[in-house]
Amino acid sequence: MHKYKGSSKLMLQPENTEELSQILKYCNSRCLAVVPQGGNTGLVGGSVPVFDEVIINTRRMNSIISFDKVSGVLVCEAGCILENLISFLDKQGFIMPLDLGAKGSCQIGGNVSTNAGGLRLVRYGSLHGTVLGLEVVLANGDVMDMLGTLRKDNTGYDLKHLFIGSEGSLGIITKVSILTPPKLSSVNIAFLACQDYISCQKLLFEAKRRLGEILSAFEFLDSRAMNLVLNHLDGVRNPLPSSIYNFYVLIETTGSNESSDKEKLEAFLVHAMESGLVSDGALAQDLNQASSFWHIREGIPEALMKAGAVYKYDLSLPVEKMYDLVEEMRIRLGAEANVVGYGHLGDGNLHLNVSTPQYDDAVRFVFLLHKSKNGPTVLLLIIIRTPQQILAQIEPFVYEWTSRHHGSISAEHGLGLMKAEKIYYSKSAGTVQLMASIKKLLDPSGILNPYKVIPQSLLS
Amino acid sequence: MHKYKGSSKLMLQPENTEELSQILKYCNSRCLAVVPQGGNTGLVGGSVPVFDEVIINTRRMNSIISFDKVSGVLVCEAGCILENLISFLDKQGFIMPLDLGAKGSCQIGGNVSTNAGGLRLVRYGSLHGTVLGLEVVLANGDVMDMLGTLRKDNTGYDLKHLFIGSEGSLGIITKVSILTPPKLSSVNIAFLACQDYISCQKLLFEAKRRLGEILSAFEFLDSRAMNLVLNHLDGVRNPLPSSIYNFYVLIETTGSNESSDKEKLEAFLVHAMESGLVSDGALAQDLNQASSFWHIREGIPEALMKAGAVYKYDLSLPVEKMYDLVEEMRIRLGAEANVVGYGHLGDGNLHLNVSTPQYDDAVRFVFLLHKSKNGPTVLLLIIIRTPQQILAQIEPFVYEWTSRHHGSISAEHGLGLMKAEKIYYSKSAGTVQLMASIKKLLDPSGILNPYKVIPQSLLS
Repeated sequence: MHKYKGSSKLMLQPENTEELSQILKYCNSRCLAVVPQGGNTGLVGGSVPVFDEVIINTRRMNSIISFDKVSGVLVCEAGCILENLISFLDKQGFIMPLDLGAKGSCQIGGNVSTNAGGLRLVRYGSLHGTVLGLEVVLANGDVMDMLGTLRKDNTGYDLKHLFIGSEGSLGIITKVSILTPPKLSSVNIAFLACQDYISCQKLLFEAKRRLGEILSAFEFLDSRAMNLVLNHLDGVRNPLPSSIYNFYVLIETTGSNESSDKEKLEAFLVHAMESGLVSDGALAQDLNQASSFWHIREGIPEALMKAGAVYKYDLSLPVEKMYDLVEEMRIRLGAEANVVGYGHLGDGNLHLNVSTPQYDDAVRFVFLLHKSKNGPTVLLLIIIRTPQQILAQIEPFVYEWTSRHHGSISAEHGLGLMKAEKIYYSKSAGTVQLMASIKKLLDPSGILNPYKVIPQSLLS
Repeated sequence: MHKYKGSSKLMLQPENTEELSQILKYCNSRCLAVVPQGGNTGLVGGSVPVFDEVIINTRRMNSIISFDKVSGVLVCEAGCILENLISFLDKQGFIMPLDLGAKGSCQIGGNVSTNAGGLRLVRYGSLHGTVLGLEVVLANGDVMDMLGTLRKDNTGYDLKHLFIGSEGSLGIITKVSILTPPKLSSVNIAFLACQDYISCQKLLFEAKRRLGEILSAFEFLDSRAMNLVLNHLDGVRNPLPSSIYNFYVLIETTGSNESSDKEKLEAFLVHAMESGLVSDGALAQDLNQASSFWHIREGIPEALMKAGAVYKYDLSLPVEKMYDLVEEMRIRLGAEANVVGYGHLGDGNLHLNVSTPQYDDAVRFVFLLHKSKNGPTVLLLIIIRTPQQILAQIEPFVYEWTSRHHGSISAEHGLGLMKAEKIYYSKSAGTVQLMASIKKLLDPSGILNPYKVIPQSLLS
């Protein structure tokens, strides 16, 4: 958070596609670099200017264009704030297929540009599946009308996918057409405790099978994440206070029938308790309790920020290997860093966070004093590493480890500025080369979001 | 069916990616055109040679590479036959996210190349959502390793989407990684009758809402399709024989709990009967009956072939407009053509078929005789139109109508040879231009599947 601070002398806020097209046309003809910006909630510096780029912010393009209640297809402008779309759909009896912590300020255009994942991916899949159409303005100002509203269209290459997740480096998304699922009336949430990681895995396997079609979230956090939330956020209570467990799992089901869904979830929980996978658990009894369960999971990033400096990693890994990385990192970093693991277990997505106290760079030593009869004596001297030294312990280790286990070094946060040069850890050289060729084809002057996504050496 | 017959002097069947790469490298260096071929079950001529292309058939590349029971990710070679994959997964407790009539001979590489839709799209979404990774060989023989197995990977452009649905014109798919859903134990099928099309639509709306998460198919056929199946296929019985209704709807639910699913479906059917949306209905009582219900829907193409010459159209349209086209076509073509409408109503996908008796081209007149007391007299003379004349009545009308209603002229069959020049009915000029640029970037000598997908004028 706030890791990247850019500065730019100019931020333009076009009101419609035509204005945005004119801006790009002008910038392209003068070789002026631009950085597209939505809600600016990204974590990898994708939407901050690096030098003196012109910021193009889509916030004023925020109209809902149409909604079809039969098909559930919503068409809207890129600047619509996710939470506003969620509220709009709620009144129509539908929901957005994506939901994430930043919903109060992130924009749908940014969500699509970064291929945002979030809390509902396990149920509704990625935006590559739910986005039906896009309108995009290319670097030269050309407006690409790919704003279809059909579930099926096999008339040639489905080019919208190029722009989903390209972080504004191939074009600027101006309109989005998205398939929204009907809102189902029955939502149940369970907060469970597991003693070990293998139980979490087995619980996931069983949940996929026994809850099947109603499973809508399977999130996990370790005891350190839980402690952070309990210690740093006001008014948070541990739903399972009798003991501190090693792992907590949040399971949400969403279905159309209250009684049969509850029955199914309860039967699943009885099975999980009896087979020893779960040590303790609580079922939310009302909406308040449900939102307090979610608040624990969603509050982790805020608690981390309050606890000190944070190094954040967003990794996809095979589920069975995922937590090994957290444990190896703990051994590497020792006691002075708090290594926290949480995330979307149902999707194989680990948020690995390293939290350290915010010491001044100058303070390198801590003396622990021992008072004995003979007066105080120095018992221990701990050398506190500088942020640079800690970072050197984490990287490139974390990327190498992920690459070795065929994971992704960015599951949902994108590459942005932070990881553009690290792309080879997760993509083959041939693929990166082809990415660069496509970038040159669509943006020959390289004005769109320079220094992001693709290694600079391939573009110059 | 059998509309396109190509001839080629050479068919190569490489055993692995390396061999296929060598073939393409050679062909590219000599500017020899190739046509990739899987099970050759396509309907638009995408896999037939036009002049003297070398056929590259993937049938010998048919190994299952890995299957992960925790994540449900299957990795296999392109030549695996869909039905074999379905059987393999069945033993592991999983299913393929796509299922279609041609499963006995179509290959997964072809399915992905053509972005096959089929019967389960309404539940599991398109291949753009479920395919997690691909290995593809480019025209110059370069092997692109994009064979990820992760649900989330946001490290740069997701280039595999370029190849999904590109009908072998950008590269040849050699390996596929796909997310497979757990097999759910409870499957229920209802066969229902509706008096009018508006009731079918309302039924779909209600089914999405009341069956929600367990709805796995929503298919429809009109009375003409039903009559064709009853008259031309052996051993098919009408599940609702008391009367002939105008429309029939097949609803399938798939869930994890037999009793609650059945309860939910029955409650839905009671509601549908009481509100008059459904005139009659039958619930399959066992597996045999379930498969006989499916046989009616899946048997329509075969019945059409037996009935005479068929003109086949595969269209996406807004659900509320869909059947208007069938009715307008009936008025246009008059009594000598049997205009049949059926398809995946849940996805807004209409299969419009025009069936005509197979007259010899020379027979243009039919005399109807009337026997009166004064001996036989010619009462009526009907001019039978030639196939060319009928075609001229259908096209371009059907494409213009679809375009005017913002539909797709190819929902799931692709463009192939048949519709390459018709692409502008469903794609904007800018998009088609960008498609052509990408084709030139990936296949500069134009050796891959020439004359298909993209209008020839843009490539020469």
